[in-house]
Amino acid sequence: MNKYEHIKQEAFEANCQLPGLGLVLFTFGNVSAADRSLGVFAIKPSGMPYEKLSPDKMVIVDFEGKKVEGALRPSSDTLTHAVLYKQWENIGGIAHTHSIYASAWAQALRSIPLYGTTHADYTTENIPCTPPMSNEAIKDNYEYATGMQIIHCFKENGYNYEETEMILVGSHAPFTWGKNAAKAVHNSAVLEYIAKMATLTEQVNPQATRLKEALIKKHFERKHGPDSYYGQ
Amino acid sequence: MNKYEHIKQEAFEANCQLPGLGLVLFTFGNVSAADRSLGVFAIKPSGMPYEKLSPDKMVIVDFEGKKVEGALRPSSDTLTHAVLYKQWENIGGIAHTHSIYASAWAQALRSIPLYGTTHADYTTENIPCTPPMSNEAIKDNYEYATGMQIIHCFKENGYNYEETEMILVGSHAPFTWGKNAAKAVHNSAVLEYIAKMATLTEQVNPQATRLKEALIKKHFERKHGPDSYYGQ
Amino acid sequence: MNKYEHIKQEAFEANCQLPGLGLVLFTFGNVSAADRSLGVFAIKPSGMPYEKLSPDKMVIVDFEGKKVEGALRPSSDTLTHAVLYKQWENIGGIAHTHSIYASAWAQALRSIPLYGTTHADYTTENIPCTPPMSNEAIKDNYEYATGMQIIHCFKENGYNYEETEMILVGSHAPFTWGKNAAKAVHNSAVLEYIAKMATLTEQVNPQATRLKEALIKKHFERKHGPDSYYGQ
Amino acid sequence: MNKYEHIKQEAFEANCQLPGLGLVLFTFGNVSAADRSLGVFAIKPSGMPYEKLSPDKMVIVDFEGKKVEGALRPSSDTLTHAVLYKQWENIGGIAHTHSIYASAWAQALRSIPLYGTTHADYTTENIPCTPPMSNEAIKDNYEYATGMQIIHCFKENGYNYEETEMILVGSHAPFTWGKNAAKAVHNSAVLEYIAKMATLTEQVNPQATRLKEALIKKHFERKHGPDSYYGQ
Repeated sequence: MNKYEHIKQEAFEANCQLPGLGLVLFTFGNVSAADRSLGVFAIKPSGMPYEKLSPDKMVIVDFEGKKVEGALRPSSDTLTHAVLYKQWENIGGIAHTHSIYASAWAQALRSIPLYGTTHADYTTENIPCTPPMSNEAIKDNYEYATGMQIIHCFKENGYNYEETEMILVGSHAPFTWGKNAAKAVHNSAVLEYIAKMATLTEQVNPQATRLKEALIKKHFERKHGPDSYYGQ
Repeated sequence: MNKYEHIKQEAFEANCQLPGLGLVLFTFGNVSAADRSLGVFAIKPSGMPYEKLSPDKMVIVDFEGKKVEGALRPSSDTLTHAVLYKQWENIGGIAHTHSIYASAWAQALRSIPLYGTTHADYTTENIPCTPPMSNEAIKDNYEYATGMQIIHCFKENGYNYEETEMILVGSHAPFTWGKNAAKAVHNSAVLEYIAKMATLTEQVNPQATRLKEALIKKHFERKHGPDSYYGQ
Repeated sequence: MNKYEHIKQEAFEANCQLPGLGLVLFTFGNVSAADRSLGVFAIKPSGMPYEKLSPDKMVIVDFEGKKVEGALRPSSDTLTHAVLYKQWENIGGIAHTHSIYASAWAQALRSIPLYGTTHADYTTENIPCTPPMSNEAIKDNYEYATGMQIIHCFKENGYNYEETEMILVGSHAPFTWGKNAAKAVHNSAVLEYIAKMATLTEQVNPQATRLKEALIKKHFERKHGPDSYYGQ
Repeated sequence: MNKYEHIKQEAFEANCQLPGLGLVLFTFGNVSAADRSLGVFAIKPSGMPYEKLSPDKMVIVDFEGKKVEGALRPSSDTLTHAVLYKQWENIGGIAHTHSIYASAWAQALRSIPLYGTTHADYTTENIPCTPPMSNEAIKDNYEYATGMQIIHCFKENGYNYEETEMILVGSHAPFTWGKNAAKAVHNSAVLEYIAKMATLTEQVNPQATRLKEALIKKHFERKHGPDSYYGQ
């Protein structure tokens, strides 16, 4: 039995969730699952349709982005995953999709305002959108630079990656993460839902305003933190 | 045989309707079913996916919000359900979702104008949206306050809860109710439909106006009241 | 064997098409099929879910709107169907839905402009929207008045009901018709498609203009008339 | 065995993909597959529902648009396909649909701006929209003229048909192509996705601007050209 089997299985299952959740067309998304003790993650092979995936086709890569095992070429976004795993030591899964509403906000270069409790159930912050990348970063090592841009955006805004598990890469599309691959995919679906709801909120009321702070705090703490009372 | 079995079954079935009607993502909704003679209601356990539900997992709660039976923790919105059952003695079921168009109107803090006969088939009023809650109410006993806010909103507007079976809780999402749990879910689907149609009506004609009173009366009375001639 | 069996079967099948085409929520639509030689039509029973229908539940009604056969109460819109069959002698089927985009245009009290060839494949006219009905007509004999309003709208605009097989009843929703019930349902789906496309066309370009006349003529005649070359 | 069997099978399979990808209502689309060595293509018969197709019903046509084999009448858009095959010698498949967002842009007479990396993964250009056709061209030989209009639009803009495999025919709908029929259909789905994303991008930010050139180049070259590293 292969020592990476558990993360290959986890990454396989999480990638297979994407089409059913309406988050991808064709091959427009990839998910990875990490094993911290082994210092590696399993990720989708590049350009392969979800219905052709199997656990053994997942590619094993280390946190520098170097392929460790696997016959196939890993996702072209692999280095972005590697950077996030290396910099943020408590995440176990990452998902990247071009889901349509979240990507529209990314293309619009706008952060998603916190308009309601659905959003506050997940984070107390707007969903950040990174600014346009410099030409040098794009040419030099694009996927690595994308990862570093995410890290810097969180640092500059004082965001906590364990409390806000999603971001829009400006002009591109969302990345989400979590304790494991399933949670990363869950967050991708939630982000798409929040993005659609925010779009409609502004359509219904162009003067819509940020949710009041007491409600933000209430809803976030209802689901997270020491006094949470959501779930079992 | 458990004396609560009928309402557990009813609540179970009604909760299971939500995904197929497109009203929920993951666990974003809960339905309850009351037995007035026993003074209790059955409600979905908190944070549990619909596909993992079974009748025996429903939680029995009294109209003060106190758990009477059940191994699991009830929905975090349980106290809101309890308040509505206690205050409005003729309702037998309540549904709460974060359905996307209705929630967008709630986030926009706007009542849904009565633009057409589809809406008038269900109520002669706009679908009300409660104003932002006070910080004190949020901190003190949030879910109870949400219920009381719904009650007050109906009182202040002179609405009849047996004629208008739906509301938007401002910044949050809709609640609907009815003679039983199935009717409450039916109303959630209708509200989402009405909310989407109103959004599009304003897009197509930003100067759209309220349906004329004669048509409102005609359509409502066609389906409700002593001279109704809709249905069997 | 019942002499109405063929139109009961036809009406049954056409009603059952509505949910799969995404044109109805719950019971929000009804279709009828006429037999001109017998002077009657078969129509959906009122308020009955599509999945509970069977051919023998269809109700037989004459062109004055009088029930001829059937245990159940016919659709509350039956008189509107009767008027159209009586006035327009070449139609064999009628469909009425509250499909969401078409109904939004009806609620917006706007005719749908002819923006492109998809629309021109079906008619050379805008899809007309009737003006608000008078209070007297609403109170007096509402469903009959709705039918007469459709007839008058076509007369006043000089439209030909065999060339334009669809209309929006203002504040309410669409009616469509055709040589049989299946064609009427086909037209309901096309109208919803056209309505959505027109909504998006105006969103993408608020100054969008009517399709040029040469293209309207070309596309309509490609599918209809003596020199048509579409289909087999 | 028929010498056209391989392209009949290819065209059949590609046409059958359209409904599942959400690109067509009823018969609103057609796909063809060419065999360059035989100088012919197989195309859908006109007005036939996808569920009634079979490989042997495909019609064989040469690059002048003359029917070579087949019992049925070919798609009414056949001459447009013929022109493109004749003029562009490296394409092996063509798809035409009335997919709703792409057609809305066509009706709006607007090219789709290149707003993000999803678009740049497929082409470095805006998706062009042809101007209104002259009355003469419409009356004379409409489908041939449509093909020539596509050819001229690419020539005038200096576009390369092997790098940009999609276009909007103004007032009408999209055409897409590729090395084979499957790739042409793939491109139709991608175009619809891009069109929807661009619509939403402008809704979220009416001042949205073209993606920066370095990112356009990076994403296009990541998937295409000598140094591409996407796929297997």
